[in-house]
Amino acid sequence: MLEKLDLTKTLSKSEYKEKIMELEPKIGKLQRECKDLGIPVMIAFEGYDAAGKGVQIGELIKALDPRGFEVHAVKKETEEEQMHPFLWRFWTKMPSKGRIAIYDSSWYRKVLIDRFDKKTKKKEVADAYRSICSFEEQLTDDGMVLIKIFLAIDKKEQKKRLEKLLSSKETSWRVSEGDLKRNKEFGEYEAINEEMLMRTDMEYAPWNIVEAVDRRFATAKIYAIVAQTLAGKVEEVRRKERLGQFKEEEITEPEKETAQDKKLTESILAKADLSLSYSKEEYRKRLEQLQKKMEKLHGELYRRRIPVVLGFEGWDAGGKGGAIKRLTQKMDPRGYVVHPTASPNDIERAHHYLWRFWVDMPKAGHITIFDRTWYGRVMVERIEGFCTKQEWQRAYKEINDMEHDLASAGAIVLKFWMQIDKDEQERRFRARQENPDKQWKITDEDWRNREKWDQYEEAVNEMLIRTSTPDAPWIVVEGNCKYYARIKVLQTVVDAIEARLKEEKKKR
Amino acid sequence: MLEKLDLTKTLSKSEYKEKIMELEPKIGKLQRECKDLGIPVMIAFEGYDAAGKGVQIGELIKALDPRGFEVHAVKKETEEEQMHPFLWRFWTKMPSKGRIAIYDSSWYRKVLIDRFDKKTKKKEVADAYRSICSFEEQLTDDGMVLIKIFLAIDKKEQKKRLEKLLSSKETSWRVSEGDLKRNKEFGEYEAINEEMLMRTDMEYAPWNIVEAVDRRFATAKIYAIVAQTLAGKVEEVRRKERLGQFKEEEITEPEKETAQDKKLTESILAKADLSLSYSKEEYRKRLEQLQKKMEKLHGELYRRRIPVVLGFEGWDAGGKGGAIKRLTQKMDPRGYVVHPTASPNDIERAHHYLWRFWVDMPKAGHITIFDRTWYGRVMVERIEGFCTKQEWQRAYKEINDMEHDLASAGAIVLKFWMQIDKDEQERRFRARQENPDKQWKITDEDWRNREKWDQYEEAVNEMLIRTSTPDAPWIVVEGNCKYYARIKVLQTVVDAIEARLKEEKKKR
Repeated sequence: MLEKLDLTKTLSKSEYKEKIMELEPKIGKLQRECKDLGIPVMIAFEGYDAAGKGVQIGELIKALDPRGFEVHAVKKETEEEQMHPFLWRFWTKMPSKGRIAIYDSSWYRKVLIDRFDKKTKKKEVADAYRSICSFEEQLTDDGMVLIKIFLAIDKKEQKKRLEKLLSSKETSWRVSEGDLKRNKEFGEYEAINEEMLMRTDMEYAPWNIVEAVDRRFATAKIYAIVAQTLAGKVEEVRRKERLGQFKEEEITEPEKETAQDKKLTESILAKADLSLSYSKEEYRKRLEQLQKKMEKLHGELYRRRIPVVLGFEGWDAGGKGGAIKRLTQKMDPRGYVVHPTASPNDIERAHHYLWRFWVDMPKAGHITIFDRTWYGRVMVERIEGFCTKQEWQRAYKEINDMEHDLASAGAIVLKFWMQIDKDEQERRFRARQENPDKQWKITDEDWRNREKWDQYEEAVNEMLIRTSTPDAPWIVVEGNCKYYARIKVLQTVVDAIEARLKEEKKKR
Repeated sequence: MLEKLDLTKTLSKSEYKEKIMELEPKIGKLQRECKDLGIPVMIAFEGYDAAGKGVQIGELIKALDPRGFEVHAVKKETEEEQMHPFLWRFWTKMPSKGRIAIYDSSWYRKVLIDRFDKKTKKKEVADAYRSICSFEEQLTDDGMVLIKIFLAIDKKEQKKRLEKLLSSKETSWRVSEGDLKRNKEFGEYEAINEEMLMRTDMEYAPWNIVEAVDRRFATAKIYAIVAQTLAGKVEEVRRKERLGQFKEEEITEPEKETAQDKKLTESILAKADLSLSYSKEEYRKRLEQLQKKMEKLHGELYRRRIPVVLGFEGWDAGGKGGAIKRLTQKMDPRGYVVHPTASPNDIERAHHYLWRFWVDMPKAGHITIFDRTWYGRVMVERIEGFCTKQEWQRAYKEINDMEHDLASAGAIVLKFWMQIDKDEQERRFRARQENPDKQWKITDEDWRNREKWDQYEEAVNEMLIRTSTPDAPWIVVEGNCKYYARIKVLQTVVDAIEARLKEEKKKR
């Protein structure tokens, strides 16, 4: 969930002022409403050292009535705490109904720092995750609002900040041995954090990733997250009261407010540099080399019995078909299969939405390519209302679990998003209409979907963030130039296979 | 969940006939209704070798229309299956809407036989559990009915059956090396099964334990389980249609049918031999010895930093107070504390129901005794309707998780149920009323609760089955003779501590 972050995001002073002035009173009001409605709130801050947890908590509480919250700094366990189960200290620091508790690093310490420092033994990790998930589920089932915030910076930025702190007597004491070690071995520590995020990003307590290089941006985004989450819960409880019903489950949470906060929400697609391109000759040259390589690697995969799952998604006319064609051109047809995914037929509709994809998963040594995938659940089905909100929100975890199962069974899993801009799409649509051989490719539905471009963009961005994992990364393919796109796809697949074969060699 | 089973249960031919004649048509009708409503059903049979999975499946399908179900025997993975993630074979064998699939051993093989045979590596186990839980949650979220049946027999019975099979050429081939090995190491294999049951006994897919020594009894109970589960789902879907609502969550499942099936439902309490007793002299003698021992062990616990959690529940006037008094009489008051649990005060009511107990848990080396416990959730709160059905059903897992956290933090956890019969209770109530010094002990509420004896008995039986684990066993104390009860409590605590200290020694 960290891979696809855009850490370059910033907010100008004026933008910042405006956002805060809008949100600060909102949060104050929401705190009072939570108090009146007896809603308990826990806000957990996690993230990398020097990412600014302390600073951000300081900013957040400016919006809160001090009589209604407490802040807990979670350091090494005290002797007293060591003599109890690790969750005990958090049970004892739990807010009562109507109060807010803020945690400067939290119960996740056990599977993060303590794990990195080997204080948490290998065999304890699985059990710790179990305890944490059951802890959070129990509390939220009981009406707790649980806001989990992860502050992300990169290795370079972290180094810079630590050095700055070290450079002055007043602050150097704040830098521990551990901080420096975790910076040195940033990659390893990041993997631990990635696993934690994926395992604990639950529908009832989702993670909010905050790009924390620009402090103003981070503060504003945290304000927005807190305001939005509290508003959602207050609205939910109010509706429940109106309905005079008392079963938590009977209320569907209100729609997330969107758009207006666009500046703050992720936008991976916007980042794609669509000017990237190759000349025809360059394309020809690279294509030939890569296809030869692919042919060779395909045999290797078969001998080593490594399964490969490739998923293709993207805008209509984004170039999926062309890329798949070039990818498979030189491959042995007995060793791969391409599954075009249409809207489900009767038999498929009579099963779980993942069923048809599970059934088609490749066996060891084979490659399966999906032209459109299970991600339809969180795109078209979400936007067209073919499934309920609960269903598509649940789907992120269901999909991550499925891809994790594939990966831990030894599969290479890659997912490509073919990105083009709106004008390019229109150009391609028109071209298709004018070309009699291609007219079949373009339907009125394509034009209708086009009108929902913004909704799709939002859904796609959320999808990329929530489901891009080390096990199964998303690759955004800059697609305005078809040549460039096809080469990038081929190159990515080749690189992934070569990397895996290297690992396998090491093992032997 | 296996400890408290009564494997001596039987059903006479006539009782059996009657039950089956009543349930068989019911099940047939329910199958048709599931078909019409498009409800998919999976029935998984697990349990010990030679417990009669095959036989019982044979009996069950007699009630089913063969056009509507298929049976899958889950053996060693085929080569094809080995080349896929382990859940793949079950995704491919999934019933479509309206159909029933029956599994002769199931996806649990991975964490049972394969684990016992080391085919599933240690480090894979945790991940396998994760995959299984997420698999079952996805399906049930999607409307699948998942009936999990565990057939239990004991080591002796299993040995007898295996030998019988071996004795004849026609059947000897059915006994594998593995069967014999698992019988020889029954205890180890049982522990693996216990862990499996506890980890996967979810609200959305609970386990049904069936005492399978008497085949007639087992068949009848399985019929009852299937009929009841399907009826519940059909009723739920119907209500949803009537309400014209489409959110699964919005319907609370119908009340479980009870009583009538009493013969089939657990009855641990009924088993208690209340004639057990000690003479005054015998009591005095044992009491003195045990209290001395306890005094010594208490010091050992402190030195070894082992925490101890003792919970006491039981009928009003069941003798909790007296037993606790004798238990602690010779103990160093600095090393233990007794928490009487009254109905929650305002602060406690402002927190999660487990909060006040978490807060009071002992630190390493200390003993905490709870006079009445967190089990109020699944007894008085359940019966008096102080919490919703979802809440008390959820509580079994929440409580098991809490006790597991305590145990894996090194605690000894024991739970005592002080059992007396209804007449003995009346005798004690009257005695209290007549004794001016004890009148305060008896209130009108005690008499009111007494009227709900049967409801409580049912709730207690379910509680004992679902929450008695190797980590934290329930001990039913035969309490009609106070002398006997007090000694049994002391003896049990002493034994548990000595056993633990032995382990610790081994480790060193």
